[in-house]
Amino acid sequence: MKTKQKAVVLLSGGLDSATVLAYAIKKGFECHALSFSYGQRHNIELKAAKKVAEKLGAIQHFTINIDLRKWGGSALTSSGMKVPKGGVKKGIPVTYVPARNTIFLSFAVAWAETIGARDIFIGVNSLDYSGYPDCRPQFIKAFAKCANLGTKAIDDGWKFKIHAPLQTLTKSEIIRLGTELGVDYSLTHSCYDPDSKGHACGKCDSCRLRKKGFQESGIKDPTVYK
Amino acid sequence: MKTKQKAVVLLSGGLDSATVLAYAIKKGFECHALSFSYGQRHNIELKAAKKVAEKLGAIQHFTINIDLRKWGGSALTSSGMKVPKGGVKKGIPVTYVPARNTIFLSFAVAWAETIGARDIFIGVNSLDYSGYPDCRPQFIKAFAKCANLGTKAIDDGWKFKIHAPLQTLTKSEIIRLGTELGVDYSLTHSCYDPDSKGHACGKCDSCRLRKKGFQESGIKDPTVYK
Repeated sequence: MKTKQKAVVLLSGGLDSATVLAYAIKKGFECHALSFSYGQRHNIELKAAKKVAEKLGAIQHFTINIDLRKWGGSALTSSGMKVPKGGVKKGIPVTYVPARNTIFLSFAVAWAETIGARDIFIGVNSLDYSGYPDCRPQFIKAFAKCANLGTKAIDDGWKFKIHAPLQTLTKSEIIRLGTELGVDYSLTHSCYDPDSKGHACGKCDSCRLRKKGFQESGIKDPTVYK
Repeated sequence: MKTKQKAVVLLSGGLDSATVLAYAIKKGFECHALSFSYGQRHNIELKAAKKVAEKLGAIQHFTINIDLRKWGGSALTSSGMKVPKGGVKKGIPVTYVPARNTIFLSFAVAWAETIGARDIFIGVNSLDYSGYPDCRPQFIKAFAKCANLGTKAIDDGWKFKIHAPLQTLTKSEIIRLGTELGVDYSLTHSCYDPDSKGHACGKCDSCRLRKKGFQESGIKDPTVYK
């Protein structure tokens, strides 16, 4: 029997990363899912990540604790900043967490190098996204170069590949893809500012993009709004 | 009075990073020092980092906890691997920690972006170093590009600069530079495998490079060997 190739998959517990995990598994990778408890306001997404990893069949799921509240700088990691609820605006919103994907990808590369995985999956997309600089294709490309130079990869004669299969998809296309791949979106969590029961606010950018995505996809939105 | 420019300085507690902190302070930066408790065997270096930050006058010193023992993969983060004591060999040694500097620099960028610092200092050097891929100049250059694309920097019309002032210096040149800048090397810690009192083993690569550096510099080595 051919051994499966290993991959590290960044898994937030949201809609996009659940789709990416399903996609990587479908592509035949043995998936090692990686989540972060980084002081996010919507820490409840980690429960979703656990359920999604189990349901889709990740071989392993690690959650790394990193305290980005140490310096805050984002509405997601600072209690002094509010999550905007007035609709998606142009530009980089206050929910942007400084260098978050750079940090997440760095850990992914570290884990990948340790277990011998050459493939890393991340659920960034540049359409229907929240204006985050660390979701753009140029960043992903630059990070791949950085990962290859900052590890043993090149010395050992191979390269890391950073897969961003959702990069050019709209939210509704992502939802259709995930539905085909068997993702149960009722397990996922997207809201930045849920209530104590974990119900979505329906008004933050993340809720709005998710709602719109389901509406445009024609697929029933399983999200519980408060 | 002119406000000082802020800089984030990676500070391990070793000889190189102490020199870099002194250098950045001399250059007129308001220095925010950043250390990591990452599960390193020589965790005692963090006590050294604290003393060095205080003594040299960092305005702030944060230590971030990240558990790289979760996956190990290095003699510094895995109890199952031994620190080599037979002398510095060619190639990448087992004390290399997968993607360590990528992770450290990612946090540095995150903090820098949050506090409005555009300058990041790191004590990598490519001569007299231990063969780590994440110390080479190409990596630092690639990381800078990545940092600029993965943050608000470019959108806001400026760029991060990653300073690696020791890049082309030998260990003895670093020691001479630091001595001129007033670094008290007795406060620093380099050994990968110290005893319970924190005394250096004298035989690991880090001890050997440090010893050789002091010998060649003609400056008295203040290190306490066991």
